[in-house]
Amino acid sequence: MNEGLARAAEKKWIIGVDLGGTNIVVGALPMDGGDGEVLALRSVPTEAIRGAKFVVDRIVGLISEVRDETLSRYGGVPEDFAGIGIGSPGPLDRSTGTVINTPNLGWRNFPLRDLIANAAGLPATLDNDANCATYGEWWLGAGRNVDTLVGLTLGTGIGGGIVLNGEIFHGVSDAAGEIGHMTIDSTGRRCKCGNYGCLEAYASGPAIAHRAMEGIEAGTESLLPALVDGRLEAISAATVYEAVVLGDPFANEVMRDTAKFLGAGVANIMNILNPEMVVIAGGVTRAGDHLFVPLRAEVRRRAFKSAEERCQIVSGRLPGTAGVIGAAAVFKKETYGVV
Amino acid sequence: MNEGLARAAEKKWIIGVDLGGTNIVVGALPMDGGDGEVLALRSVPTEAIRGAKFVVDRIVGLISEVRDETLSRYGGVPEDFAGIGIGSPGPLDRSTGTVINTPNLGWRNFPLRDLIANAAGLPATLDNDANCATYGEWWLGAGRNVDTLVGLTLGTGIGGGIVLNGEIFHGVSDAAGEIGHMTIDSTGRRCKCGNYGCLEAYASGPAIAHRAMEGIEAGTESLLPALVDGRLEAISAATVYEAVVLGDPFANEVMRDTAKFLGAGVANIMNILNPEMVVIAGGVTRAGDHLFVPLRAEVRRRAFKSAEERCQIVSGRLPGTAGVIGAAAVFKKETYGVV
Repeated sequence: MNEGLARAAEKKWIIGVDLGGTNIVVGALPMDGGDGEVLALRSVPTEAIRGAKFVVDRIVGLISEVRDETLSRYGGVPEDFAGIGIGSPGPLDRSTGTVINTPNLGWRNFPLRDLIANAAGLPATLDNDANCATYGEWWLGAGRNVDTLVGLTLGTGIGGGIVLNGEIFHGVSDAAGEIGHMTIDSTGRRCKCGNYGCLEAYASGPAIAHRAMEGIEAGTESLLPALVDGRLEAISAATVYEAVVLGDPFANEVMRDTAKFLGAGVANIMNILNPEMVVIAGGVTRAGDHLFVPLRAEVRRRAFKSAEERCQIVSGRLPGTAGVIGAAAVFKKETYGVV
Repeated sequence: MNEGLARAAEKKWIIGVDLGGTNIVVGALPMDGGDGEVLALRSVPTEAIRGAKFVVDRIVGLISEVRDETLSRYGGVPEDFAGIGIGSPGPLDRSTGTVINTPNLGWRNFPLRDLIANAAGLPATLDNDANCATYGEWWLGAGRNVDTLVGLTLGTGIGGGIVLNGEIFHGVSDAAGEIGHMTIDSTGRRCKCGNYGCLEAYASGPAIAHRAMEGIEAGTESLLPALVDGRLEAISAATVYEAVVLGDPFANEVMRDTAKFLGAGVANIMNILNPEMVVIAGGVTRAGDHLFVPLRAEVRRRAFKSAEERCQIVSGRLPGTAGVIGAAAVFKKETYGVV
């Protein structure tokens, strides 16, 4: 441990890369994490449609910008960068640094890690984006003082990550933590993954928007149509939160339903993994107590008391940067054995 | 590690105790586990209704019998026994050796470990019965060559245990592994635990028997009534397996339904924990391929390919003794740091 810390202390910064279907986020972290602020942060569209080479070149260009800006603002030499942690949609093979398959990017068996490492001239690590987001919250966010936590990021899908005793739990083939694809209704809605009744099919952003639209189309009164100028197809999860905050009863009902589905999923996590904390991240957390109060109540109804009493359910504290921070933490952990 | 092995080698045997609502099973294991045969095995009714003192005295008496028989058959001295591993229904607190609450036995905050240790004059450990059963399969059963596995024991309830890298995963308050109380139908049947739609409510012995009875009462033709001499209330899960083996189409349908529910639960385990193996134990496994073929097919439909491909779904190999063996393994692990 001390040897790892000593080796880590020879370098000043780690670069984190969070590759998503929509955006690429890149920035630098001080070796000790600092106060959780990402240095020289960049976020630009992925434009995956322009091909894998374009995306890799864009990432490498961003890394170069981040290095230059960090050095010019904080001083130092290029050798002060220890390396690059990359978070990417999976499934992936960490040992070879290969993305096995990402529908969002259209890649198959793509050696992302080594392409970036070679082009940037720095060592790199690769891990799943949702694992990185959870590890970021553990390192410098909501889970700073916690050993064992589970993270859920609610967005277009539901990403999940598991941190046990300060380490990401990967399972036998790097596939662990797919909590969004836990069945909570075995005869329920078909999910994009092919399974039925996944949590993601009920509590992701599109699922929330879909339930809201169904209600409006069935004639329920609500502020929602006015918020989208009558274009119902423009209702998104964000519109629903907006209406909740404005006090719209129907939007609040949609949020309570979401909390119930999510509560079944979170209770399952508690009954199976008995963590100290569940961190919920993503746009949906902007609903605040409108989400968390019914969520906690539903979990209390469903989970074992001895597990529920010991588990905090909290909102993520690193919106937009948890993935970059966690990717850097993965690099640090794999390289030095400590974070 | 080597120090632990050396210390363990100074003793010959460990006593395992598997306390259940119906039976108490006690026996001795050679320190190295031997071939998995339990020495001087005893199984007697718990008779919990006679009170906690009666049950403790009965366990202590059985331990004494097992020691005497082991010594008389294999030679040795009383000091050759290292100690006692106890498996008990939970929830429990391992650090204090206290059973917090077991509805089946009617105990609350009961210091089971120390009562037995003091009466028997040997050190003892306490762990959850389902954890012990899973650890037994890992040590000397189906999971001998596997690091990470999940165990499910289907009986009156559904017990679960998680072994990660050769250690039982307990979570933050010894409540992890309650896989039987994973919701697979969030709006489904009420479970004894208070939650809705738990796996246990669909795939436990009583749930299987209940579905069979419903079908018969609705007029479905089947061998089942004949097997219980027309007393439908006597139909148990065992009767259903018997009818399956005799080729009864309706019983086979009940078994396929069970496999579907169980498949949703096992797929969840794979998507969350990505283990190398899932071990299914309990009477239901007597249905053999009638259960496992549709179970594996259902899991393939539901789980992520990268997780499913790397996970064996197998039957337990230690019927009746997994709990005793695992309880002894817990003692060995906690005392010497190795198993």
